Amino acid sequence: MSDTAAPYSRTDRTTPTRYRDRASWEREAIHAVLDSTFLCHLGFIADGAPVVLPTLYARVGDRLYLHGSTGSRPLRGAGEDEGLAVCVTVTLVDGLVLAKSAVHHSVNYRSVVAHGTAHQVTDPAELAVALDALVDQVVPGRSGDVRRPSAKEIAATAVVRLRLDQVSAKARAGGVQEDEADHDLPYWAGVLPVATVQGTPEPSPYTTVALPAYLHTV
Amino acid sequence: MSDTAAPYSRTDRTTPTRYRDRASWEREAIHAVLDSTFLCHLGFIADGAPVVLPTLYARVGDRLYLHGSTGSRPLRGAGEDEGLAVCVTVTLVDGLVLAKSAVHHSVNYRSVVAHGTAHQVTDPAELAVALDALVDQVVPGRSGDVRRPSAKEIAATAVVRLRLDQVSAKARAGGVQEDEADHDLPYWAGVLPVATVQGTPEPSPYTTVALPAYLHTV
Repeated sequence: MSDTAAPYSRTDRTTPTRYRDRASWEREAIHAVLDSTFLCHLGFIADGAPVVLPTLYARVGDRLYLHGSTGSRPLRGAGEDEGLAVCVTVTLVDGLVLAKSAVHHSVNYRSVVAHGTAHQVTDPAELAVALDALVDQVVPGRSGDVRRPSAKEIAATAVVRLRLDQVSAKARAGGVQEDEADHDLPYWAGVLPVATVQGTPEPSPYTTVALPAYLHTV
Repeated sequence: MSDTAAPYSRTDRTTPTRYRDRASWEREAIHAVLDSTFLCHLGFIADGAPVVLPTLYARVGDRLYLHGSTGSRPLRGAGEDEGLAVCVTVTLVDGLVLAKSAVHHSVNYRSVVAHGTAHQVTDPAELAVALDALVDQVVPGRSGDVRRPSAKEIAATAVVRLRLDQVSAKARAGGVQEDEADHDLPYWAGVLPVATVQGTPEPSPYTTVALPAYLHTV
């Protein structure tokens, strides 16, 4: 587990049923996707049915910390001992792939799917690390330029931990695939790149300081 | 079901456990979120464990059609009769909310969570409608400017249908919330708007026509 160069374990569960050639179990590739954004979709089972909720996460080494703000529902079952079976999925869209035929339309993307058992974080020191990481995952460097959480605030915040182990990445990149018979059709085909950008910062009424350097580069 | 003005049913399952004041069951609000993007996270249960996969979807009236390209796994169980219990979640991030205290950091977002039983679409006419809708959800107007799927391609494509019924929207908008005691702290606070933008289109080598008007406005 501490060998940071080794790939994650490849199992039936972490092997996609389609487009296996797009999958990777390499630690570096998986971490790169996880470090590119801050929103995941957390899946768990409640009353026998699947539930998927968006929530914030942070990666710290081989652990994901998930913020409990999506509701106490998943966390109720995630005690330190028994834990909660979860699937955490992170997806980034990089482009729209428009082919001359409808069936070859696609999307360029990077995604990570992590399976495992999530446990509630109860140790105050680990909670403090997790809360800093959750802030820094959204805006790198931010946790050093805020009022840090008090012991009372830390105790009131629900965070769960998922150890990365049963995890894989999947990606599509590149251009359009066409059937040869479609090459000469008079339609526009190609890739429309998609990116997430930041607009003009809107300071709150109580803000008296200039925009910090780390916010210029978010 | 055919009363398009009525809200969706509010049940225990569609009532969030936290921030209930951010929730809506209004048809118009839910459709507005669903019509703003094309990627969902599909949750289901496989071998007793939750699985969440990203996939493309389209809304047609009170139905969602999900593309089967995430793998045959979920579709295997989604026969026309028995169906597959699913949760489909769509999330859009609109801004990063940075407060003077770490604990009041938040995200502006819009999301929809739909619960229900998905069924595989087997009728060729409905499949054709669904495939057009899946293309138009990504790029409105595109399905009229491509080679439409052949009967053989339609038959080979897996699509599942989820009727919208147990569904709710949730959103956060607006500015920063602060504890009064934090108002004078010397940190930058405010909202960083986030938007998804399209880059310069990259035509494929076989493209001989100019960029169509509908691609200028994606």
